[in-house]
Amino acid sequence: MQFFFRPRGIALIGATANSKKGGHSILFNLRQGFDGPVYPVNPRYDTILDLACFPSVAAVPDPVDLAIVFVPGPKVPEIIRQCAARGIRGAMIESSGFAEAGPEGQVLQQELVAIARETGIRLWGPNCMGLVDARRRYVFSFVTPTIWNEGLTPGKVSLIVQSGLLSGGFLIDLMTHGTTGISKVCSVGNKVDVNECDLLQYLAEDPDTEAIGLYLEAIPEGRRFLELCRRCPKPIVVLKGGKSPGGARAARSHTASLAGNGAVVTGALAQAGVVEANGFKQMVDICRTLAEFSQVRPEALGRVAILTYSGGSGIISADGLHALGLPLARLADQTLAEIKKVFPDWMPVSNPVDLWPAVEQNGAQAVYTAAARAALADPEVDALFIHTFSGGFDLDLDLKEVAAEARRRSKPVFCWLLGAREAARRFQIDVQALGVPVFREISRAVECIKAVFTPRIRSVEPAGGSAVPEDAKKQIKDAAGVLNEHRAKGVLAACRIPTVAEEIVAYAAQADAFARAHGYPVVLKGLMPGAVHKTEQGLVRLGIASPEALATAWRELHAAMDGKGEILVQPMLRGQPELIVGGLRDGQFGACVMCGLGGIMAEILDDAAFAVAPLSRADALTLIGRLKTRALLNGFRGSTPVDRQALAEILVRLGDLMTACPQIREIDINPLICVEGKPVAVDASIILEKR
Amino acid sequence: MQFFFRPRGIALIGATANSKKGGHSILFNLRQGFDGPVYPVNPRYDTILDLACFPSVAAVPDPVDLAIVFVPGPKVPEIIRQCAARGIRGAMIESSGFAEAGPEGQVLQQELVAIARETGIRLWGPNCMGLVDARRRYVFSFVTPTIWNEGLTPGKVSLIVQSGLLSGGFLIDLMTHGTTGISKVCSVGNKVDVNECDLLQYLAEDPDTEAIGLYLEAIPEGRRFLELCRRCPKPIVVLKGGKSPGGARAARSHTASLAGNGAVVTGALAQAGVVEANGFKQMVDICRTLAEFSQVRPEALGRVAILTYSGGSGIISADGLHALGLPLARLADQTLAEIKKVFPDWMPVSNPVDLWPAVEQNGAQAVYTAAARAALADPEVDALFIHTFSGGFDLDLDLKEVAAEARRRSKPVFCWLLGAREAARRFQIDVQALGVPVFREISRAVECIKAVFTPRIRSVEPAGGSAVPEDAKKQIKDAAGVLNEHRAKGVLAACRIPTVAEEIVAYAAQADAFARAHGYPVVLKGLMPGAVHKTEQGLVRLGIASPEALATAWRELHAAMDGKGEILVQPMLRGQPELIVGGLRDGQFGACVMCGLGGIMAEILDDAAFAVAPLSRADALTLIGRLKTRALLNGFRGSTPVDRQALAEILVRLGDLMTACPQIREIDINPLICVEGKPVAVDASIILEKR
Repeated sequence: MQFFFRPRGIALIGATANSKKGGHSILFNLRQGFDGPVYPVNPRYDTILDLACFPSVAAVPDPVDLAIVFVPGPKVPEIIRQCAARGIRGAMIESSGFAEAGPEGQVLQQELVAIARETGIRLWGPNCMGLVDARRRYVFSFVTPTIWNEGLTPGKVSLIVQSGLLSGGFLIDLMTHGTTGISKVCSVGNKVDVNECDLLQYLAEDPDTEAIGLYLEAIPEGRRFLELCRRCPKPIVVLKGGKSPGGARAARSHTASLAGNGAVVTGALAQAGVVEANGFKQMVDICRTLAEFSQVRPEALGRVAILTYSGGSGIISADGLHALGLPLARLADQTLAEIKKVFPDWMPVSNPVDLWPAVEQNGAQAVYTAAARAALADPEVDALFIHTFSGGFDLDLDLKEVAAEARRRSKPVFCWLLGAREAARRFQIDVQALGVPVFREISRAVECIKAVFTPRIRSVEPAGGSAVPEDAKKQIKDAAGVLNEHRAKGVLAACRIPTVAEEIVAYAAQADAFARAHGYPVVLKGLMPGAVHKTEQGLVRLGIASPEALATAWRELHAAMDGKGEILVQPMLRGQPELIVGGLRDGQFGACVMCGLGGIMAEILDDAAFAVAPLSRADALTLIGRLKTRALLNGFRGSTPVDRQALAEILVRLGDLMTACPQIREIDINPLICVEGKPVAVDASIILEKR
Repeated sequence: MQFFFRPRGIALIGATANSKKGGHSILFNLRQGFDGPVYPVNPRYDTILDLACFPSVAAVPDPVDLAIVFVPGPKVPEIIRQCAARGIRGAMIESSGFAEAGPEGQVLQQELVAIARETGIRLWGPNCMGLVDARRRYVFSFVTPTIWNEGLTPGKVSLIVQSGLLSGGFLIDLMTHGTTGISKVCSVGNKVDVNECDLLQYLAEDPDTEAIGLYLEAIPEGRRFLELCRRCPKPIVVLKGGKSPGGARAARSHTASLAGNGAVVTGALAQAGVVEANGFKQMVDICRTLAEFSQVRPEALGRVAILTYSGGSGIISADGLHALGLPLARLADQTLAEIKKVFPDWMPVSNPVDLWPAVEQNGAQAVYTAAARAALADPEVDALFIHTFSGGFDLDLDLKEVAAEARRRSKPVFCWLLGAREAARRFQIDVQALGVPVFREISRAVECIKAVFTPRIRSVEPAGGSAVPEDAKKQIKDAAGVLNEHRAKGVLAACRIPTVAEEIVAYAAQADAFARAHGYPVVLKGLMPGAVHKTEQGLVRLGIASPEALATAWRELHAAMDGKGEILVQPMLRGQPELIVGGLRDGQFGACVMCGLGGIMAEILDDAAFAVAPLSRADALTLIGRLKTRALLNGFRGSTPVDRQALAEILVRLGDLMTACPQIREIDINPLICVEGKPVAVDASIILEKR
């Protein structure tokens, strides 16, 4: 991919002298920063912007390994063939008019796919804004030259963006404000060849990139993407568009690509150690924060000491940290004593540390520095959150010493800033150069602190591994359609997933014998061929407590079933909580496993978490830990806690079963009842792919 | 209060020529904008800044009705006496060194209280930043003169802020950025006399104020505050600091004032029609939005049409709206057809409306205007969310026509803007002048759209009204300590709150007779004097299904109680859901009523909502509607829905009981079981104030 990011020479096909056209903007932008030779190609000109112009790409001299293409869609395939013939290794197609533009464009795009396959040329785009590298000052894009207004702001964050205009517009916004630095922005467009996976792979090893943000509407190579995220040593932040039903509708119409189920995406990203964002600027803010603090000790708890000049903002910060589950640091006595030295006599020290009265007495620089040093030295403090003001109140601090001390101790420092417009902008730029991210809203600062102290578990232990027995595989292989409860639990039991004792019985006396052996009360269920919703059909009799009741239930069920199907008897299990676990095959990520709360609350709370199969044991435990109602598993009012290891084992085995048998479309275990803490599958179904 | 906001003349006591001191900043700021006479008072000068300086306030000529005081704390009481003697009606004390500064300061502050009471002079502060009126250019504050850098930005939003430095710093930030207009900012400080209630009352009738934002750490006059909010015709937004345990700790140390229970505050504010904010800038953003759109039809559903130049931002907006429960508008066929006229042939129209291909073909102004007109005309559209860009891409729109059309139809328009720094700032200022609030982050825009379409129910029907029977009052009056279950339910039953049938029984045979009359199974409970936790003490026997089981349970309970206490028998009620309701007396708001989910999930979900008593029927129904798990009340899988009117009636009566009997500290009904949809109090306790 190096020829895309550091080409030896660039042919610009579609260059023009008409300054209103994109083909002119690209040339202008290349001239502004690219340090290699640029060859405009357009048979209608001899020179453009003082550069010799070539009639065709064949005529372009060496060195050239990248073509930037900005000609009308229908002309693109022929141009790409010429590029490939000229030995050009990559083409960045910024023209639109392809899959996003109706059926004719789709045909054109298919042609590009074929040419790439045939000739080996790598294609970036089409329908994209290309590449901007703020560190090298490379702008391979028709983005408006406004981007140069305040110079490019170089930084450590690289972005991959599946939205052309947004990437351009967003970038200009970032660059002209000057407070957020960027390394590379890659606008991927229709992803005919080069996609987010290829770019992620490149950026993972790019020495100029410390954190990677992605805006994605679809992740078609879901598995490869997750694997790359898992192996990437740098923080990755993803904003996934189209997670809501409305959003997904928009995603389809925009990129003609399927947006995955929101909960599956969330689970898959969490499993791969990716941070999920919910907005463009928030994504970049989290990225620039993580780019600074990817080295925070993983065992740090995120105990924050707040140093402020305003009691009010200290309180709001404490409220915000609390809302995200981050603890306020309890300052050690020695720390309190140290800070007290710069405080007025009457004022006690507590966290949030309101420094204003001390500042009035001893000056901001001395007071802030002393308090910061003391807090950083405190082993109970994992991070500092410094509030300051620029352009008045003499609060323009020099944070050099604090930043150096923090780096020495590997403790992150965050800064919230109010201030007069220009002064605050300068302060922000200067302080960020010290490795201290500055935020203009407390809420955003707190979100970024949270991101730093959220452990990113990227499982390394080999996933899965519970060999699926041949017996289970054979049961699936021989089947079709929907496996009824009894057959589904046969498969699960073969995979050593605990299931309730049960028996298909032909006579009432046989059911009674089962009930006496296992103990009353029992349950009778009528299994009708092809039917799934037994309860709705009135084919379930719960809590049968005596032989008499059994006889009655048997008669009723028999009558309702009209001689069809089979009758199943089980002991009536009771236990808390009731869970739902299952498996499904997602369009983007393939086999997935789900764990959720069962019963009535399931419908109210929508509390289900997903992970991609196969799962490691750690994946399964983390999945359980992502349930909102996970505290239910701890046991309540003397009830036995749920055996999380046993539950995790079930999830691992479900994932292995989904993986081993691609024929399975969906598995539902509902309910999975925890009896004395041990989860047992009480009802289940398995839906197979149509053959 | 007019002498604070529009004084005829101002005496500045503590004026100084030393430009490093606050007493100089105040004078500078007064000279910069105040249009009446200013009289510096300081015996050490003849003139300051060309103004005649007076040796004492007694020497100041007329007209003068406001004193701004900035002398060291210990000198303040004497100065205030002099002001009162001179006939000055109000003093704004900006000095610090009072209750916030230890015991000596507290004594000083008490002295101020006494002087105000004695002389009738109104006191604002101390320990505050005073008043800024950006429309009149009045800056009665020592806020740094940086505030004038870019001129004051006048607007429709007034703020009341319980945090001096924050109000000053925040204001400079807002003013120098120039994109958020402000009417008045009142920094209330220690609130020795004038408090948020007085100021709210003034601003409610201030013609220059269209929306009011308050940052508060404590609301000591809680009842008065709520009543003022309820009656205020303008939108009110409150940021309450100290809602988290950590935050509350900080609040205590900062203002020596008790911060209320977060859930109580949230309930009380919602009941009074107040919007709650969670950050400073968010508070102001919501205020400036509501200031524009306080006239939105209350029945509007918030169905949003998104007009965008970027599919990606359309998708993220749809996701954001969905997350806050706001619907995307389904555009009518006629609207789609109208917009289609400016679209390229190949492109279908849907919401979010991606206008870019149309813009490329027909230009931004024509396309946006056509689409906006069509969407505004659609009866299924309640609001427009327009995305645009400034400083490139030719997207700098003239929104005059769209804004006028929207105003004509009483439909709000919101704008999300990216852009080059200066261009975007200018665009924002210009577009906001049209009454279209502009946001720089989609997430904030969506929060503000939500605020506009959240109905603000301010109940007008007389609250309470279920007369508490004399019988119930007498039972409370005669009691002390903790009323046990039986006595508590006696009080509740007297208030016509449904309670389970029950009887105190002396013999097993009596219990059996009760059980036969009401039907087995029954419950036996041992009521020990002074004990509350029966279950933990093993004094509850549930589900006694037969006379034999009753005899056994009776013997066991009798033995456990060792001859003390009484035994209670009740039928064993079953039903879903189990609720908890109750009453408590809050430090700020007094008698409150609570409704929450019971059982195990109560501890996990923390789902309880509060309202201030007495409650109207509408208050009670709204309170129920604020439960996260309210869907549980709708009935599930064929179960009877909860009778919300009956539940509301119980809450109203609880509120009336709390109001009528100030002796009650706390009432707990736990559980309140819904039997066939009808809530019945099964266990209860009432805790009385110690006498």
